[in-house]
Amino acid sequence: MNIEMIEAAAARCAGHIRKTPLLSSPFLDEIAGRRVFVKPECLQHTGSFKFRGGWSAVSALDPDTRARGVIAFSSGNHAQGVAAAARGHGVPAVIVMPKDAPQLKIDNTRALGGEVVLYDRAGGESREEIGSTLAKERGLTLIRPYDEPQVIAGQATTGLEIAEQAAEQGIETADVLVCCGGGGLTSGIALALEARAPGLTVRPVEPEGFDDVARSLEAGGIQTNNGPQVGLCDAILTPAPGKVTFPILSRLCGPGLVVSDEDVREAMRQAFLRLKVTAEPGGAVALATALFHGDAIEGDAVIATISGGNVDPALFAQILSEGAPA
Amino acid sequence: MNIEMIEAAAARCAGHIRKTPLLSSPFLDEIAGRRVFVKPECLQHTGSFKFRGGWSAVSALDPDTRARGVIAFSSGNHAQGVAAAARGHGVPAVIVMPKDAPQLKIDNTRALGGEVVLYDRAGGESREEIGSTLAKERGLTLIRPYDEPQVIAGQATTGLEIAEQAAEQGIETADVLVCCGGGGLTSGIALALEARAPGLTVRPVEPEGFDDVARSLEAGGIQTNNGPQVGLCDAILTPAPGKVTFPILSRLCGPGLVVSDEDVREAMRQAFLRLKVTAEPGGAVALATALFHGDAIEGDAVIATISGGNVDPALFAQILSEGAPA
Repeated sequence: MNIEMIEAAAARCAGHIRKTPLLSSPFLDEIAGRRVFVKPECLQHTGSFKFRGGWSAVSALDPDTRARGVIAFSSGNHAQGVAAAARGHGVPAVIVMPKDAPQLKIDNTRALGGEVVLYDRAGGESREEIGSTLAKERGLTLIRPYDEPQVIAGQATTGLEIAEQAAEQGIETADVLVCCGGGGLTSGIALALEARAPGLTVRPVEPEGFDDVARSLEAGGIQTNNGPQVGLCDAILTPAPGKVTFPILSRLCGPGLVVSDEDVREAMRQAFLRLKVTAEPGGAVALATALFHGDAIEGDAVIATISGGNVDPALFAQILSEGAPA
Repeated sequence: MNIEMIEAAAARCAGHIRKTPLLSSPFLDEIAGRRVFVKPECLQHTGSFKFRGGWSAVSALDPDTRARGVIAFSSGNHAQGVAAAARGHGVPAVIVMPKDAPQLKIDNTRALGGEVVLYDRAGGESREEIGSTLAKERGLTLIRPYDEPQVIAGQATTGLEIAEQAAEQGIETADVLVCCGGGGLTSGIALALEARAPGLTVRPVEPEGFDDVARSLEAGGIQTNNGPQVGLCDAILTPAPGKVTFPILSRLCGPGLVVSDEDVREAMRQAFLRLKVTAEPGGAVALATALFHGDAIEGDAVIATISGGNVDPALFAQILSEGAPA
């Protein structure tokens, strides 16, 4: 993994991925006590940053391999990203999804042309095993959700944009808070910033109870989450940082940060109220930290990613209704 | 009004207004039966396009006049736009707002530094009279919400961006659907497109019962709405097109379009689901037309503005909950 690989991914993605804006609001600045800039990847195609990695990986395959199709296992956002990228290249995609994934993500993956295979994660089925078996049977190429260099290079294009947009805002040093599951987006952004904006420091953010990355960084080696991978922040509930991503995280990131589901819900309301964008729970952990855990970060400005916006309307309506009157 | 005046406004606004992206979704294309592109001005500073006109008008004042402050009357979005623009210039702003405006808009206007004066529109008080009186008493400059050339020139910067972004998408001819109240945004975009993208035709869109612009265009002269100016689409419930805006609309726009509140609610849900942005009711009329009234428009692509996103969370939650399960 190096900046040349990221630049090559950016070139393959040009004209296909959307350059998302950098948003801000004086109301958020006031809550946080510093300037808050938000990179809303919920506005990316398919509603999350995962389209970047999907496009990068599918476009990097040699044409004969690509023509046989791809397979992915995902709780939803990687599923949609790979399905859309495969459709954009005119090749088939099989997506292995947990039965309890948000219905919106399952429906969208199908509508984007993906052949969805459901599995029971609560019952202990392994998506990795199912994915590997299907890949062998049909000659499909497995596109891993984060532990795959071309996927990381695609997610890293987010970091190239952040570097450019931070410079436009005159920001030379700041923490960059990244919603972190397996670490694909986090390690990608960290690599891009290392080369293009070395004064910006990536800080992975996770939900309480799923803080494998924070604990791994502290311990200096991969730690795992035990128990079922089910919770509010479905997009980022991974069992452990990846074998490819962890060494990058370990080399480049500051300490990990952890937020409560309550903070996440309030951050979703603030993104709605002040930025007019939809953040899904897992996509709101970084903003939650920027707004409500300012003591854990440094500097007079902070940049927070919103990694995705694929949340069921009923849940979003419920979270909006819980808020104090505006 | 000419393109030089719009270019001058764009120069004054550069670095202050946000260039909003042009969004799309294959799901919306499928509903509409053509390619749908959305210009989400809900992502503009203050949550609506009104900041463009506010900044343009305040920045165009001579410094001595500006220093005495400005005044505006508005149901909410112009209020926030002018308040934020005045604060950005370090001058006071008095905002005359109806008592029944969405609470979020009143609160935001105050938080942005505006001195809010409430009036009773249902009881027949005239915001124009109140505004004019206060302006004289305090030496404030009245910034009209739409019938003011420098405001129109500011809104027209939206059109400059649309012209550039349409060209990037290879769109040479299309209807451009614009949420229309008094006609400031609509006439501004029409003027910009006349000069920069003459194959794009602006179509004003209004809610049922408030179709003064559509009727005026058809009649060839200004027609008014009777009855109280209260309804779901609060941002665009104006009694009649403006004296400055109507001749521009009449010269440049195609026939007006009208949508039901039910269509508006479904368009708000689609913007949430597919674009991950918040549209307020008045900001969703153009998207509603693009999605549900395709027979009234022409071409294989359509561009729809979302003019604002300042909607109370309780109403938004209610509208989301009404939708069919995703």
